[in-house]
Amino acid sequence: MSVIQNIFNSRSEKDGNFFSYLTKILGFKPKVLKHYKKAFTHRSMGLKDDHGNPINYERLEFLGDAMLSSVIAGYLFSEVPGGNEGYLTKMRSKVVSRKHLNELGRDLKLIDHVSSTIPKTQFGANIHGNIFEALVGAIYLDRGYKYCERFINESVIVPYVDIEQLEGKVISYKSLLIEWCQKEKKEFDYEVYEDTGIDELKHFAVKLRINDKVIAKARATSKKKAEEAASKRGYYALQKKIAIR
Amino acid sequence: MSVIQNIFNSRSEKDGNFFSYLTKILGFKPKVLKHYKKAFTHRSMGLKDDHGNPINYERLEFLGDAMLSSVIAGYLFSEVPGGNEGYLTKMRSKVVSRKHLNELGRDLKLIDHVSSTIPKTQFGANIHGNIFEALVGAIYLDRGYKYCERFINESVIVPYVDIEQLEGKVISYKSLLIEWCQKEKKEFDYEVYEDTGIDELKHFAVKLRINDKVIAKARATSKKKAEEAASKRGYYALQKKIAIR
Repeated sequence: MSVIQNIFNSRSEKDGNFFSYLTKILGFKPKVLKHYKKAFTHRSMGLKDDHGNPINYERLEFLGDAMLSSVIAGYLFSEVPGGNEGYLTKMRSKVVSRKHLNELGRDLKLIDHVSSTIPKTQFGANIHGNIFEALVGAIYLDRGYKYCERFINESVIVPYVDIEQLEGKVISYKSLLIEWCQKEKKEFDYEVYEDTGIDELKHFAVKLRINDKVIAKARATSKKKAEEAASKRGYYALQKKIAIR
Repeated sequence: MSVIQNIFNSRSEKDGNFFSYLTKILGFKPKVLKHYKKAFTHRSMGLKDDHGNPINYERLEFLGDAMLSSVIAGYLFSEVPGGNEGYLTKMRSKVVSRKHLNELGRDLKLIDHVSSTIPKTQFGANIHGNIFEALVGAIYLDRGYKYCERFINESVIVPYVDIEQLEGKVISYKSLLIEWCQKEKKEFDYEVYEDTGIDELKHFAVKLRINDKVIAKARATSKKKAEEAASKRGYYALQKKIAIR
């Protein structure tokens, strides 16, 4: 056990890589690395601290889940001033749904950094969301509520949360936009102008042109998401113009 | 409607009293009074803001509930390092149970400050807990997460949360203490030395003596609670002494 603990506590090249990865996905430098290491440790490692308490991500999941819920509650409360208690509760459960959290965790490639003695192919589908929650818990321990809020805002709310889409009013901005272009007899195209597919964290940047004029740009972890995000921006930009006309 | 709104927005003697009451129960001065006014406004008042959104405590309940959950999660996480996810979830649900929140709200006499057009006797039992949650939501809006945490710590955790009691290991420290005194042939008595029962917020201070020596003091909103708190302190103080002997 003490050998495993030494490995866990040691500073190494692996730590350096982990630190760089975290800095990239968090948008800030982690202070106390051990919280994050715990968030990426599976129970199969059998690690224990000096008091005999297990070192793995499970308790951090509980903490992160709570922080996620309250940050999203705060966001929805201010974002939808007309939504009643029932509406807010329903919207929040959509944002923090298992499916959604798994998607977030998968996009951040969290699983690539998990320490485990069982093959990763044997993990269930929820591993992605669970590690994502644990990561939020680790941020809370390392930097407090404000940083949690900032991370959730940047990695959950901005790229993934769209009230209209959650309400089922808009299924896809891309199809809305295409429909509009066809009706108005405009040419449109989506151009991927940046593709860091070889990088550890894939990023795609997309330009949306209508009649050869760039209307919107967006960046996301898949081509599909970047196109959708660019379409959403384009859609609102066009709406403004149409209202002005 | 505008008359009601003016009443709602006006500064008055009533506001002054409300401000004093809040300062007393919060332990700090509120900055933006309107958040708290909302937390104490029942839907029967039919108030609406300039955008037509209702002004009452219901949305704040949603917000406060989320903040309560995450503050208690943070507390339990650090307080019980050996508790697994399931344990932490169970303990939290005990702390934030409807019954418990109603008790908290009742002790703070929140209902006395609620604006409503229906008689308060017609409110359900949950009004106390609902207003308590709304109050936490108002604190979050007024002062942020840190103050929420502080308030919940001082008004929920310190006086009401005892891990051993929640785990069902200790039902009553008073009975434990009495048992011990009888076994050890010691005399004991509880003396109420402060009783602000005439005050808006009742407070009782109790001294616990064993063989004429003051072992512990405690203050609470009922005689029973103050005795229990003094017993708990006395119990731990005695345990230390017994360990030293």
